[in-house]
Amino acid sequence: MNIHAPPRDRRDQARIVRQRARQGELTGQTSGYAPGMVQGNLAILPKTYADDFLRFCQLNPKPCPIIGMSAPGDPALPMLGGDIDIRSDVPMYRVFENGACVEECETISHRWRDDLVAFVLGCSFSFEEALLEAGLSLRHIDKGVNVPMYKTNIETRPAGPFTGPLVVSMRPFKPADAIRAIQITSRFPNVHGAPVHFGDPAAIGISDLMQPHYGDVPTLNDGEVPVFWACGVTPQAIVECAKPSLCITHTPGCMLVTDLLNAELAIL
Amino acid sequence: MNIHAPPRDRRDQARIVRQRARQGELTGQTSGYAPGMVQGNLAILPKTYADDFLRFCQLNPKPCPIIGMSAPGDPALPMLGGDIDIRSDVPMYRVFENGACVEECETISHRWRDDLVAFVLGCSFSFEEALLEAGLSLRHIDKGVNVPMYKTNIETRPAGPFTGPLVVSMRPFKPADAIRAIQITSRFPNVHGAPVHFGDPAAIGISDLMQPHYGDVPTLNDGEVPVFWACGVTPQAIVECAKPSLCITHTPGCMLVTDLLNAELAIL
Repeated sequence: MNIHAPPRDRRDQARIVRQRARQGELTGQTSGYAPGMVQGNLAILPKTYADDFLRFCQLNPKPCPIIGMSAPGDPALPMLGGDIDIRSDVPMYRVFENGACVEECETISHRWRDDLVAFVLGCSFSFEEALLEAGLSLRHIDKGVNVPMYKTNIETRPAGPFTGPLVVSMRPFKPADAIRAIQITSRFPNVHGAPVHFGDPAAIGISDLMQPHYGDVPTLNDGEVPVFWACGVTPQAIVECAKPSLCITHTPGCMLVTDLLNAELAIL
Repeated sequence: MNIHAPPRDRRDQARIVRQRARQGELTGQTSGYAPGMVQGNLAILPKTYADDFLRFCQLNPKPCPIIGMSAPGDPALPMLGGDIDIRSDVPMYRVFENGACVEECETISHRWRDDLVAFVLGCSFSFEEALLEAGLSLRHIDKGVNVPMYKTNIETRPAGPFTGPLVVSMRPFKPADAIRAIQITSRFPNVHGAPVHFGDPAAIGISDLMQPHYGDVPTLNDGEVPVFWACGVTPQAIVECAKPSLCITHTPGCMLVTDLLNAELAIL
């Protein structure tokens, strides 16, 4: 099964991954599962917070691209897959109360409430697949480490309790490859889109490129420049800061695998 | 008359510019004339050279984007304007024999031969208009000087006698604006398209950014990076080096104004 399989076969694969998560057979990372399919970040909030969070996402579409959203109390997400039950279809969840992680669990049925709203946000896996397909190398994948991520001095646009700095991920490229990467990721506005910056880290408030706030220390080769994309860690960091009474997320790397094709997200 | 006039009015304006050139009333630069319309670089060669030059352009589409080409001996270019007579419709011509400029003249009727082929190549005026329309500033336009141009260590792909280095033009931008400029110029592959490089000039063989080979010395402000595009001076420099028995070009800045809309060149 791979990205070049027919869409129908790839969607079958996505459903199988979700079934395995639902049955407790898959409880770890989803990287490399169901190639070609969109994987999403999860944030579940009570309705009292969800309205502000929705507004926050709409004000900050680069770090917070919504690809799916549930009705209050409804665990279905038909726009992402007809069979999805968001209470069980993610391999591993984290439950936060007032900003503190209180539980990590394979299902959240025992936590579900009539006022909960699920948000699924696009993730960089989709544009990374497009970059690899275009023949570009991604250093963190070549090295088998996590992409480095940094808090910047670029403020997001606040909404209610949700406020804070933009977090960016960094991938090094030679300039000609960076130009190609800008073109390719511009086609994917629903998974962070074009970079927000390249070159001098200090220009966006990063004092030391070798000390990322999240992920692993990067390696830059001669002639490469750092290229910075808005990152899905932004909403996670901002929700943690806002300390809502309840918030449920996926465990990092344990994503919701959807029935959307990565190629479907391309606007061009 | 401006870029926001209806296409019909803008095409009328292009025809008027050509008529004035034909009648010897316009003998200077065409910059700012017929806004919104494509202006082109001209190279006329005998058929014995034209076949290799066509191959050269097809091998090097970024510096040499062909937007129009005549049949041997035919001074018409119907794809660029129904009334065009390439012997008279450019404000000022230069005639080269064996690589040396031997004449500058308002018409080339006295030089016309049955074996001459006219090539019209896209020029950066078109993408610069798109950049300005998108709200970006262009330093050389703000300063009222020529864009700086540089010979690089990037070799073009040779064809027959036509061989030599790529020439690039440079425009400074802050990184976020450079990303936008990459997106916008990517839409215009027929007028040089996306940049070929940004950042370190030495990486493409430019030893001193403050000593351009053509055009004026640039000004870079704090936080700006140089962004380099393939330049229409490349074919001019290469034709001069090849020293064909005869070559006729436009005088720099005195372009052929066509009936194509700049917006028509956008692929997206």
